[in-house]
Amino acid sequence: MIRVGVNGYGTIGKRVADAVAAQPDMKVVGVTKTSPDYGAEAAIQRGYDLYAAIDDRSGAFEDAGLGIAGTLGDLLDAVDVIVDCAPAGVGERNRPTYEAHGVSAIYQGGEDAALADGSFNARGSPEISDADSLRVVSCNTTGLSRLLAPLEEAYGVEKARVTLVRRGGDPSETDRGPINDVVPDPKTVPSHHGPDVNTILPDVDIDTAALKAPVTGMHTHSVNVTLDEQPTSAEVRELLRAEARLFLIPEGSGIDGAGTLKDYAADVGRPRGDLWENCIWEESIRAEGRDLYLFQNVHQEADVVPENVDAIRTLASDASREASVTRTNEALGVGLDSLLSGGGPSRDQVAADD
Amino acid sequence: MIRVGVNGYGTIGKRVADAVAAQPDMKVVGVTKTSPDYGAEAAIQRGYDLYAAIDDRSGAFEDAGLGIAGTLGDLLDAVDVIVDCAPAGVGERNRPTYEAHGVSAIYQGGEDAALADGSFNARGSPEISDADSLRVVSCNTTGLSRLLAPLEEAYGVEKARVTLVRRGGDPSETDRGPINDVVPDPKTVPSHHGPDVNTILPDVDIDTAALKAPVTGMHTHSVNVTLDEQPTSAEVRELLRAEARLFLIPEGSGIDGAGTLKDYAADVGRPRGDLWENCIWEESIRAEGRDLYLFQNVHQEADVVPENVDAIRTLASDASREASVTRTNEALGVGLDSLLSGGGPSRDQVAADD
Repeated sequence: MIRVGVNGYGTIGKRVADAVAAQPDMKVVGVTKTSPDYGAEAAIQRGYDLYAAIDDRSGAFEDAGLGIAGTLGDLLDAVDVIVDCAPAGVGERNRPTYEAHGVSAIYQGGEDAALADGSFNARGSPEISDADSLRVVSCNTTGLSRLLAPLEEAYGVEKARVTLVRRGGDPSETDRGPINDVVPDPKTVPSHHGPDVNTILPDVDIDTAALKAPVTGMHTHSVNVTLDEQPTSAEVRELLRAEARLFLIPEGSGIDGAGTLKDYAADVGRPRGDLWENCIWEESIRAEGRDLYLFQNVHQEADVVPENVDAIRTLASDASREASVTRTNEALGVGLDSLLSGGGPSRDQVAADD
Repeated sequence: MIRVGVNGYGTIGKRVADAVAAQPDMKVVGVTKTSPDYGAEAAIQRGYDLYAAIDDRSGAFEDAGLGIAGTLGDLLDAVDVIVDCAPAGVGERNRPTYEAHGVSAIYQGGEDAALADGSFNARGSPEISDADSLRVVSCNTTGLSRLLAPLEEAYGVEKARVTLVRRGGDPSETDRGPINDVVPDPKTVPSHHGPDVNTILPDVDIDTAALKAPVTGMHTHSVNVTLDEQPTSAEVRELLRAEARLFLIPEGSGIDGAGTLKDYAADVGRPRGDLWENCIWEESIRAEGRDLYLFQNVHQEADVVPENVDAIRTLASDASREASVTRTNEALGVGLDSLLSGGGPSRDQVAADD
């Protein structure tokens, strides 16, 4: 049984905790919070032992009526792996503490790649052994790596060019922008996302340009990949359909954006309406000569969650990559299997004044 | 066992179906859809028998790869109560069909009050007997009735004045407005909501003014009630806290809007992140002389769901109102019970430039 702690029970941390709890070979020892807010309450209500992330704030939890099991140091003494889900940059500050306790650590994609022994994506990165720490790459990098790895293997990637229309904040983050604008962010091209993909797929030539939009649901990628070979659109669809962590949104399903995607996820019983898979509009997959085009959506709160589980096994077990992915997918139910035949009418309805 | 059908497995219908399935004394015989979209697929994946709402569209379901159990007429022959969850106004067109099959019917709040034998809210409307049909009032009317009923009972309501800032559409409705504006809708005051409250609480004097905002999460009500008596703010808080279908958002919880409210709901395990209760900001409850003020949020997709369950029992059983509400609340888990003491620091953070 791999004993796991989650440092930072926020958007990613709470999902990682639930995913770890669902694994037959793992146990959640506890989770941390910096303050006694609704998330801390919910952790207790879900049955997780709660620890104060910052020693001298312990009293605030008791004052608020929430019992804690200890502080971060106590949690670190009781786990094999700590999953750092602190805000970007805080992981770096936490590293000495993890090392002092001799605990293997997983960091999130907001940290510098150099912080960990390696960057991780279950589909893209090579087998890793003898690492004490891993960095699970960001939601966008995860989504791009999952897509590009099979394309590179099957057809060779000459060059990938991707525009990322990123969500402004998560649904709970009401104090972020932009509002009523689409903002180049960063204004320079390429954005950092392309180089980050190269921490996973070092040989793929990729440029990325990034915008921010006033939405909270998901990121949207407009993807162009110039391939070495010339597959048909249908062949690419079948290649991608075979990947468990890619979901091809069936034509005619009525799913037309992040709102309906998350509605569908909730309909089929996904906790929190989470989409662990890249969501690719099936009819957008279009091969023109060696140029491949498609739109995909990435759920920024969820797609890295199964990757964190696989990263834990990489650090703390002898399971092969393939065995871990299979186990993770089965335990969580990763892999949306639509009953819709995809043969329905196209629902492209582009308004004339758009 | 009360045999229930749901005509229209959409935003409300799918939630009513799940709520009915959770009741020990009810059974979902089947649900209908007009077209084979992702909602129809999800109904099958959740184990509901699917019926075509419109006879001559049956073939479309088979073409899309979805098996159906029959058409609406077949479903009506097999149920005691049909819950009409069709879009507003379609319920009226459906009534002759229900009557031809001799089936009791429940309509939603988008229909005219005259369509049914009575309008229904479990907290507000009087005990009803010998009705063949009921209309569960709209989400906003439900939210207002639940709030005003205890205030009227405890202190007497001289006059209620409410501004409703309504969501533009549901999360899945990407083709609605407004965008980037707050729109008086209707421009006339009072809006129809006040008179609709009077179908539940005929003696309460209430005026309402309604706006629409570019949000999808919840409706927000700014409430003023001039009472006959002069309770303290603390007394009103305790009065409202005792109501199972009112949730007082604890001070210091960090819940600051619909985004965090729905995040909290998902955190504590609510299906679809649903909030069946009115959500009232505890620190907004303020008595100034006989004037009471507060803000409340109403989850337009969810708050009528337990009311539909109670309406079914009203039509098809001898259960008292109180017994039904208790049973519904227990089966669903209505009633958020926060661990937070509410004694934390106030998190009012009004930006100077707002």
